Amino acid sequence: MAEFKAPLRDIHFVLDELLDYDGHYQQLEGMAETNQELRHAILKEAAKFAEQNLAPLRRSGDEEGCTWSEEGVSTPAGFKEAYQQYVEGGWAGLAMPEAFCGQALPSSLALTVAIINMQANHAWSMYPGLTAGCLDTLLAHGTEQQQQKYLPKLVSGEWSGTMCLTESQGGSDLSFLRTKAQDNGDGSYAITGTKIFISAGEHDLTENIVHVVLARLADAPAGTKGISLFIVPKFDVTEPSQCGKRNAVHCGSIEHKMGIHANSTCVMNFNEARGYLIGNPNEGLKCMFTFMNNARIGTAAQGLVGSELAYQGALNYALEREAGRSLTGTKSPERPADRLIVHPDVRRMLLTIKALNEGNRAFIHYVSQLSDLELHGNDQQKQEGGELLALLTPIAKGFMTEAGLEAANIGVQVFGGHGYIREWGMEQSIRDARISTLYEGTTGIQALDLLGRKVMGDGGKTLTQFITLIANDLAEMDDEFARPLGVKLQEWGDLTQTIGAAAMNNADEVGGASVDYLMYSGYVILAWMWGRMATLAKEKLTDNDDVFYLAKVSTAKFYFQKLLPRTESLKTTIETGAQSLMDISDEEFEQLAEIC
Amino acid sequence: MAEFKAPLRDIHFVLDELLDYDGHYQQLEGMAETNQELRHAILKEAAKFAEQNLAPLRRSGDEEGCTWSEEGVSTPAGFKEAYQQYVEGGWAGLAMPEAFCGQALPSSLALTVAIINMQANHAWSMYPGLTAGCLDTLLAHGTEQQQQKYLPKLVSGEWSGTMCLTESQGGSDLSFLRTKAQDNGDGSYAITGTKIFISAGEHDLTENIVHVVLARLADAPAGTKGISLFIVPKFDVTEPSQCGKRNAVHCGSIEHKMGIHANSTCVMNFNEARGYLIGNPNEGLKCMFTFMNNARIGTAAQGLVGSELAYQGALNYALEREAGRSLTGTKSPERPADRLIVHPDVRRMLLTIKALNEGNRAFIHYVSQLSDLELHGNDQQKQEGGELLALLTPIAKGFMTEAGLEAANIGVQVFGGHGYIREWGMEQSIRDARISTLYEGTTGIQALDLLGRKVMGDGGKTLTQFITLIANDLAEMDDEFARPLGVKLQEWGDLTQTIGAAAMNNADEVGGASVDYLMYSGYVILAWMWGRMATLAKEKLTDNDDVFYLAKVSTAKFYFQKLLPRTESLKTTIETGAQSLMDISDEEFEQLAEIC
Repeated sequence: MAEFKAPLRDIHFVLDELLDYDGHYQQLEGMAETNQELRHAILKEAAKFAEQNLAPLRRSGDEEGCTWSEEGVSTPAGFKEAYQQYVEGGWAGLAMPEAFCGQALPSSLALTVAIINMQANHAWSMYPGLTAGCLDTLLAHGTEQQQQKYLPKLVSGEWSGTMCLTESQGGSDLSFLRTKAQDNGDGSYAITGTKIFISAGEHDLTENIVHVVLARLADAPAGTKGISLFIVPKFDVTEPSQCGKRNAVHCGSIEHKMGIHANSTCVMNFNEARGYLIGNPNEGLKCMFTFMNNARIGTAAQGLVGSELAYQGALNYALEREAGRSLTGTKSPERPADRLIVHPDVRRMLLTIKALNEGNRAFIHYVSQLSDLELHGNDQQKQEGGELLALLTPIAKGFMTEAGLEAANIGVQVFGGHGYIREWGMEQSIRDARISTLYEGTTGIQALDLLGRKVMGDGGKTLTQFITLIANDLAEMDDEFARPLGVKLQEWGDLTQTIGAAAMNNADEVGGASVDYLMYSGYVILAWMWGRMATLAKEKLTDNDDVFYLAKVSTAKFYFQKLLPRTESLKTTIETGAQSLMDISDEEFEQLAEIC
Repeated sequence: MAEFKAPLRDIHFVLDELLDYDGHYQQLEGMAETNQELRHAILKEAAKFAEQNLAPLRRSGDEEGCTWSEEGVSTPAGFKEAYQQYVEGGWAGLAMPEAFCGQALPSSLALTVAIINMQANHAWSMYPGLTAGCLDTLLAHGTEQQQQKYLPKLVSGEWSGTMCLTESQGGSDLSFLRTKAQDNGDGSYAITGTKIFISAGEHDLTENIVHVVLARLADAPAGTKGISLFIVPKFDVTEPSQCGKRNAVHCGSIEHKMGIHANSTCVMNFNEARGYLIGNPNEGLKCMFTFMNNARIGTAAQGLVGSELAYQGALNYALEREAGRSLTGTKSPERPADRLIVHPDVRRMLLTIKALNEGNRAFIHYVSQLSDLELHGNDQQKQEGGELLALLTPIAKGFMTEAGLEAANIGVQVFGGHGYIREWGMEQSIRDARISTLYEGTTGIQALDLLGRKVMGDGGKTLTQFITLIANDLAEMDDEFARPLGVKLQEWGDLTQTIGAAAMNNADEVGGASVDYLMYSGYVILAWMWGRMATLAKEKLTDNDDVFYLAKVSTAKFYFQKLLPRTESLKTTIETGAQSLMDISDEEFEQLAEIC
């Protein structure tokens, strides 16, 4: 595969030109200094760091994987050194408060840097990525004493963090949670239980690992209302930033996975480990949503890993590889065959990747602005931004990760048989991308969150506001795109009403339509992004003929003609309702399972 | 993953009830004895063989993989013993002539057995699978002496065969072929060159391996018109069925692949290896199409691997795994949560797998009947069957393998995070299935073959005949399915004309529409199959209430409501034409590749 290059030009286009990040930061307290010049300087360094330190370890890390022993987990060769560089470069605390020696830059900028790191090395990027969730939780819900103890070294990156939610009995269903917390009477709790699928649960990159753990107090009510949140450090922390006694939390084994081999996925055993309550007893789920929403945006962004790597790989391959002749006549008479790029179907594949990749890039940085507003805006911005963010988070997570997986698959397809061979690096993109639609809530879970909670939950209020917001854009949008987008906006609202009416009689109509609805919503949002990008690019082209802008307009046309029409099938499948899904009874499925 | 069970009931349904294989065989010379009783007996034994000998090696073979050394390639533990059982069971020569100690059963029955073996162990099944192509070529184009020498041990399975086509310069483009054949003047040729991606090119299962090799004679014309076909045995064969001197053909290395780890994918070096011409000089491509068409049907059938394993795995998991509660009220109050099967979206996934799997099963056994007609029918059947087979082969290969990959992906999705863990066996299905859309001609190559050669090539004549054939079925089909299918048939013809008209002005319109057209065609054909299956099942249900037939009717409804609508998007993307694919020039793509 071609060497990874951070797509800085396109990132700048989205941040500077499309989404006016300068104006955005100026309205946020303390963020005005993060202007274009500063952003470019930081992103240039971030690109250099990722290209030089992380990308070269992508393949080798996949081949070597992590190694478990009684003593702990070893990461692949080079991972520790790269992490050291990351800490020394001050990257860990980019968006953290200055009080803890962070740099207090906007979290949207930190996400932009994180995406570059993910694209360079998905597995590596998860080690600092998991720390972010732990940090956010402590910042939002930790006591001052807890913050003093843990935050400085988490912010510097010298310590890392995890989120320990899942147990073997139930993945998405936290009512199964069994891990116990027994009050020690000294302000600490004895945590006992086993967690599975703990990413970065154990490794050799940092001197301490701070686990954020869901557990039940002895007298807690049953179900999800009896869950509390605890800090359980690998080494107990008695003085601020000082590692004390080894705690009774150990990695029992690591999973053998399809991909992200270089990230340790751990079974974590807590055996009366010392833990410390975060927030109020039995309010763990509420606290958890703090980091879960952020984690979902981070995972949404992972959709850009599969698509960016597919784009860079497929574009270069299509320009180099020779096969067949163009059906409209030889294009390279000096070569024994024309290049792949002459073939319309190869271009269809390449443009599909490009349209999903760049559309989703615009989408994630838009969502990221909402996250800034929720964190740093004035009261009205906090509320409005927060509501819109809540609506868009499941769409971003579900749609972008599905799109990333599709793009990674197409990337392999462009390479033909070579795509299947490990040394080309393309098939790893599928294996790595495959996790993104599963963890942090599967696409099905996101879809239920979207349609059941976020849309039906407020009677369609936030959705209607969002549709109005897009509709207000149409007047300024090039008519070629505004017209079909306007039709889709109307249809989106109508479809929502159709489902709502059906759901009044049968709640299963929500579940039956949910994933199709989520994907439909994603395609409409990307049409909005592409309409805006093309309109902007056309304006720019009045001054110059930069191929970058030409390609934006062409790719927008492609998107509207070749990808947006997927909404037509989705509309039909939504309208046909849930009946055909529920026809076969559970008992009949049992009987079918016995037939062979 | 649940233990693999061969889906005998559904196979019998398709062969006995849907496609009247009894009647089909009775009209073919020498095949009348292959009646239902005999078929059931053979398939029962085949199922037993695959379940007991092959399925247990699926995971272990994937983990261990093949091992290369200077001496050759070792297959994973147990593979040789399983192959020995296969030979001793007489499975290899099922459809081969009695003259070579075969059992002269119909090739469609041999394919049915082969599919069971693929489903049990994709990688293992490729060793005997590749032999089939070699056998067919020798039967069709070998001299009597060549047949006497090689066929008996190939038919018994004591020797295996390969097809050596691809070279590194060009995958699908054979004009690049460089391997040379020098006349030795003694009836043999010295073959020199390197072939890549040779499945089962070297292994330890058989005492000899007979390679069928494409090469160029010294005086051959350039391009594909100068390609000849040669037999190059690993051990020279001087007396019939006797291994002589080791030939100068060696495996230089094996590929490290995404999946099918247990099948060796070899770089084969020919260093003045002794080879023997098959057929006429410079007519190698013509001979090659003999085995290529069969190989494509065999690869089409591999689409049923991903879907069958996904179905069995997902169905069992959905019936066991507990998570959440049904939105319409608790279904299993005695359990801490309801089972996955209560959730509409899980059912949507499961039914998608089921509808693709069973629809494609009907499709492949229909195609297989045409193959019987072409081989064993009277003159008219040979011609008509052959033409229809030629039309449907690229659809079967392209559509079924894409569907198999989709089903394998959905299978993982049903398992949530557990799907990503190797020990569950679901992710292996994706990795194994991923090759099927690439080898034996990518989906893009199949689509060009379909639309460019098979449809446009005869001015739509064969397609029109096929559409008429389906239309003649509508009168007997339940109206619920006949009506929408009738609409689609009309639309299929119209779309074909639309593309044809556009292609008159611009040949790229063919390439631009081809894959969407192939997928469109596949969905319509599956609608035909589902309409027929549901109509038949409804008839059966007048006598009984067998859940098998109930599920057929329900799954057909599901197919028409949830999968056939995909044709709506495909119709639009076909109609929007190739313009948006060709907008960005090759040179502009080059400039884009430089931007970052």
